[in-house]
Amino acid sequence: MIGGGQLARMTHRAAIDLGITMHVLCPDKHEPAPAAGAIWHQGSADDEQAFRGLAAAVDAITLDHELVNRDGLERLVKDGYTVRPSPAALAFAQDKLFARSTLGDMGFPVPAFSEIDDADQIETFASHHGWPVVLKARSGGYDGRGVELVSSRDDAQAVLDRGGNWLVEAFVPIATEIAVVIARRPGGQTATYPVVETVQDDGICVELVMPARIDDAVAASAIELGTSIAKAIEVTGILAVEMFITPKAELVINEVATRPHNSGHATIEGSVTSQFSNHLRAVLDWPLGSTAMTSAVAATVNLLGGDQHVEPTERLQQALADPDVHVHLYGKGWRPGRKLGHVTVTGDDADTVLASARRAAAVLTQP
Amino acid sequence: MIGGGQLARMTHRAAIDLGITMHVLCPDKHEPAPAAGAIWHQGSADDEQAFRGLAAAVDAITLDHELVNRDGLERLVKDGYTVRPSPAALAFAQDKLFARSTLGDMGFPVPAFSEIDDADQIETFASHHGWPVVLKARSGGYDGRGVELVSSRDDAQAVLDRGGNWLVEAFVPIATEIAVVIARRPGGQTATYPVVETVQDDGICVELVMPARIDDAVAASAIELGTSIAKAIEVTGILAVEMFITPKAELVINEVATRPHNSGHATIEGSVTSQFSNHLRAVLDWPLGSTAMTSAVAATVNLLGGDQHVEPTERLQQALADPDVHVHLYGKGWRPGRKLGHVTVTGDDADTVLASARRAAAVLTQP
Repeated sequence: MIGGGQLARMTHRAAIDLGITMHVLCPDKHEPAPAAGAIWHQGSADDEQAFRGLAAAVDAITLDHELVNRDGLERLVKDGYTVRPSPAALAFAQDKLFARSTLGDMGFPVPAFSEIDDADQIETFASHHGWPVVLKARSGGYDGRGVELVSSRDDAQAVLDRGGNWLVEAFVPIATEIAVVIARRPGGQTATYPVVETVQDDGICVELVMPARIDDAVAASAIELGTSIAKAIEVTGILAVEMFITPKAELVINEVATRPHNSGHATIEGSVTSQFSNHLRAVLDWPLGSTAMTSAVAATVNLLGGDQHVEPTERLQQALADPDVHVHLYGKGWRPGRKLGHVTVTGDDADTVLASARRAAAVLTQP
Repeated sequence: MIGGGQLARMTHRAAIDLGITMHVLCPDKHEPAPAAGAIWHQGSADDEQAFRGLAAAVDAITLDHELVNRDGLERLVKDGYTVRPSPAALAFAQDKLFARSTLGDMGFPVPAFSEIDDADQIETFASHHGWPVVLKARSGGYDGRGVELVSSRDDAQAVLDRGGNWLVEAFVPIATEIAVVIARRPGGQTATYPVVETVQDDGICVELVMPARIDDAVAASAIELGTSIAKAIEVTGILAVEMFITPKAELVINEVATRPHNSGHATIEGSVTSQFSNHLRAVLDWPLGSTAMTSAVAATVNLLGGDQHVEPTERLQQALADPDVHVHLYGKGWRPGRKLGHVTVTGDDADTVLASARRAAAVLTQP
């Protein structure tokens, strides 16, 4: 796996069961995955030479994040190495303009958008679609970074003045945010998890409920849409498709990620097979595991570093006092806003499990 | 953890979630736990000097097996290191004569037994209790090794001629074999899993069903008995108490193990908290997790190396064709009779899940 963060850490945990030896490529051996025992290769996700060293040691290469040298991956594929997802599928996660335009051309419901160079073009776009509009960094954004809601030409200009490449999107009114998580094998077999309801705070996913508390017909449409995208972009491994449900119950695609995703964390305890296990199985072209749930509902709350210094490791005993709470720590030290771990609770009732998970998360992160 | 086998490997997997860094002491870095990324300290379970190196690196020492230098552990405790289970509790797992006599004196139901030095004493014992009798190695036996059913003085003499210390026991007619798995904190808090039904073949555990398909009143008595033993011997961590149910529905204690145990493997998927996670929590004196089941029933079948060379890794894709099967491989190469892994299936019906688990196990181990 290129990248050694928490997704690689949880993939390593799944790899242990299957007798798979996980190697990870990342700059620092103290990152979450090598700290949990994945075999460490030193190097960055830009470093094509380091990719070669990793490739020589493993059967297949996959990714912990999308900020990876895609040209370097292309050359690995040309030289006969197995890279899953393919660089072509990765492009949908790396380049938002490409994803919007290609998915739109394929007929999938994306927000109105435009490539822009200056504030004049934003103003023209807004004259058609109305203010506010959304400015998005074409690449490199995550966890709300690189997404700006602007209500005037002046605000837009201020964003552009920071530099970088931006696109403009129509503002979509949101009733509910959801994600569909799909595992897909090279030959096309897919396994799709129940729709996940996600709650974002300032662009960062803070909690999830699986299955989403939405209309059955909308859920079925979302599953159909996610699965169609997986097929259309020929992803291998996990694909997460983030969507908005508008107040009129329409589905609009937000982002796609071609890797295990935060919205799938409840699958560790909530599903027969976790997204991490199914990612490995898909990448290795092995049969996929069941995505059926193990209980009626699962809720996950992320552990985000608060403004005051609180180390979740020092609060673990308090959090574990609730015997139903599953704590996952990523081996990272506190920093404000940093994802330090997550907690999951499964049960019969969404409100109950969400309340338990929120309580534990507060204990682990709040002073 | 002293020892780096599959129990340490699965404990390491549980440690990752809790942000615990697992160190293991074992002779070879290719053993199951260091191969999965637990930090390796080279040394044997006899080597008191190696214990000191391990102790200096960790907060608490625990055990993957019982064949550990107990005097060395005693001296660690005297020097202020945390060792859980205590050497006094470990003695019940190490020394069968001590366990039998002490548990018997405490009033727990153990088979009639006697210390013996020669075949005359065995014949005298048999004259009171009848042939056949069971000869047991006083220490060091496991997986059926060190247990001999003998029906005559000549057979008994043949066993004694091999050397070693033996005790004799009355043969107990067995309707069902079960195990009770309990986690216990230093202060006395316990969490007990549902009774597990175990099936042995030639003394090796081959499969488990949780909960055991036995009378509720017998199950309740078994839980009570197991919990009482945990308290009486003041174990810290997991205690597994193997018991026989006689045709008259009486409970007789067979063996005790003061560590995570094969009979608890179904807890990984079958229980809210696995025995491995609860072992860590108990050893670190943290609150214990729920031992409630995640489904009506869970079945586990061990992967034992067959007579012909079959590597489970090469059969994994076939086994995973059943999307409900959970495969756990221990990273060990094939040898006849060797425990190479296990498979677990959860569901609503014991016969169904057992059939699936057996089918997968056969695929993984049989030519």
